[in-house]
Amino acid sequence: MPAIDVAGEFETIRRLLRPLAHPEWARGLADDVAVLPSRPGHDLVLTKDAIVEGVHFLPEDPLDTVAQKLLRVNLSDLAAKGAEPFGYLLACHWSERCGWPEREAFVAGLRRDQAIFDIALLGGDTVKTPGPASFSATLMGWAPSASTVSRAGARPGDLVFVTGTIGDGWLGLQALQDKLTLEPERMDALTAAYRTPMPRLEFAPVVRGLATASADVSDGLLADAGHIAEAGRVRLEIDLEVLPLSAAAQAWMDSRVDPQGALELLATGGDDYEIVLTAPAGAENALRREADRRHLRLTRIGRVAEGKGLAVRYLGQEIKPTRSGWTHD
Amino acid sequence: MPAIDVAGEFETIRRLLRPLAHPEWARGLADDVAVLPSRPGHDLVLTKDAIVEGVHFLPEDPLDTVAQKLLRVNLSDLAAKGAEPFGYLLACHWSERCGWPEREAFVAGLRRDQAIFDIALLGGDTVKTPGPASFSATLMGWAPSASTVSRAGARPGDLVFVTGTIGDGWLGLQALQDKLTLEPERMDALTAAYRTPMPRLEFAPVVRGLATASADVSDGLLADAGHIAEAGRVRLEIDLEVLPLSAAAQAWMDSRVDPQGALELLATGGDDYEIVLTAPAGAENALRREADRRHLRLTRIGRVAEGKGLAVRYLGQEIKPTRSGWTHD
Repeated sequence: MPAIDVAGEFETIRRLLRPLAHPEWARGLADDVAVLPSRPGHDLVLTKDAIVEGVHFLPEDPLDTVAQKLLRVNLSDLAAKGAEPFGYLLACHWSERCGWPEREAFVAGLRRDQAIFDIALLGGDTVKTPGPASFSATLMGWAPSASTVSRAGARPGDLVFVTGTIGDGWLGLQALQDKLTLEPERMDALTAAYRTPMPRLEFAPVVRGLATASADVSDGLLADAGHIAEAGRVRLEIDLEVLPLSAAAQAWMDSRVDPQGALELLATGGDDYEIVLTAPAGAENALRREADRRHLRLTRIGRVAEGKGLAVRYLGQEIKPTRSGWTHD
Repeated sequence: MPAIDVAGEFETIRRLLRPLAHPEWARGLADDVAVLPSRPGHDLVLTKDAIVEGVHFLPEDPLDTVAQKLLRVNLSDLAAKGAEPFGYLLACHWSERCGWPEREAFVAGLRRDQAIFDIALLGGDTVKTPGPASFSATLMGWAPSASTVSRAGARPGDLVFVTGTIGDGWLGLQALQDKLTLEPERMDALTAAYRTPMPRLEFAPVVRGLATASADVSDGLLADAGHIAEAGRVRLEIDLEVLPLSAAAQAWMDSRVDPQGALELLATGGDDYEIVLTAPAGAENALRREADRRHLRLTRIGRVAEGKGLAVRYLGQEIKPTRSGWTHD
């Protein structure tokens, strides 16, 4: 039922969120709606993801990084589709533990990422829940008209690429759950990958220009590659042994007796927020050049063939991974 | 943490939500993003509200009406700003009790309101929470460029109007909490007003054409009129005795010994989802004609003066209401 709250909705909006508002389109967060002028020649690209304490982030995660992760998992969807973000709407479902200092921390995280990614708050809602905290954001970006890459465009003969490294987010979660022992600096790198993944927005124009299909890697590399295979009614063949690993993930690999099983875990763990994409073989040089210019690692991890589904190989042999990705529901 | 779920995210999207998707812009809910072409000559109007079980709806409320209320509280924001809705993004935070039948019921409510209001699902997310269920929706509409009415335009000399009737939502909540005894048909009417309020979308073009300021009545008539006063740096004078009441609300009034106190409760209870607006005195006839054409009740409840804040009167005497509206946070 409605209730008076010390860290109330109006105070939260007025003192914490209004300073983050888009100078024009958010109407000072005082008007129930945001109003965006049309941008001829462009499409509006929208995505909305939600995160729940205890499901998508840990109760111990600092709220500033929770806010950053909320924005970044959504920004990653825009990057993978070739769109350039400009703003977002936010719904905060504060739990009992979200008093004023926690809300300030959350907003500090939003502010940090607004500066990094050049986005502004457009509107939203703030409510209290007796359950665990949860948050959702609707992220918005522009893309030149009809340029947005779908999941469905992969063609036989295309190659499969992935940005960055794979497995760090999942290893970071293991580290935070004390299931992992590595040198402190490795642990820190993995924890940071879990809490504040880096959406590959700088690669969005390249995806738009060169990719035939793309998705962001959130459910796990194999699951998301599988989505591209399914949507395009083609077969994707992925080579596990070329999986791009960070120094920390390589250190973890070195401690494992079963490298194939270890790679399977990294390729299915999820929470990577990299871009998996397909492109014609003739585009490989251009893709590599664009990645180099951005100091972004880009790895060819497989190819597209006639057929359907996902074929996973290790050292040339087709294998059956025991799981293809997590269900986050 | 990630977990396998019998009523999983993919099944929920594929079997329940995909049939609701916009035929073109939602990309079959299979692509992480929705893509909207620009509409030259129009602004995009956006609003995002969240509702939480036990806070904004009752655990006993049927999930089909919860879905309808979610859409309607957001549609009401668009109506009050003169925008015409076309679609929405949805985040479902399902609780433990939301198995397959409950999700089907929720989707049946969405489907019903999609037909009534001519809107389509554009995208979103579905997650599971160990706490109470909560939902948020980002509603989107078009308005002719630069026509969107703000809260801030009221000018001294303007009149204050409200659509429909006031207090039914609050009385419906009292009825559902067994705090009210009236004839069964009255109880049903009030319960319906609480669970499935009717956003005044048919009045959106009139608001756009004639209102100087507007807001939807969600926090309570006096609170929302107060927002208009504050945003416009003017004084709003509201006459309580002319408050438009439904037959059920009038029946409740007749049972009260303190009519002024009863009117105060109705004017502060909230959950009305009517439109409160200001307009020049010269626009009154046109407003009434447009309301009549739509068989919509429209009541003049006050006037705008120099000064600031809200003045509440009862039978010509200024009074101090004991509360001006609920805080829903």
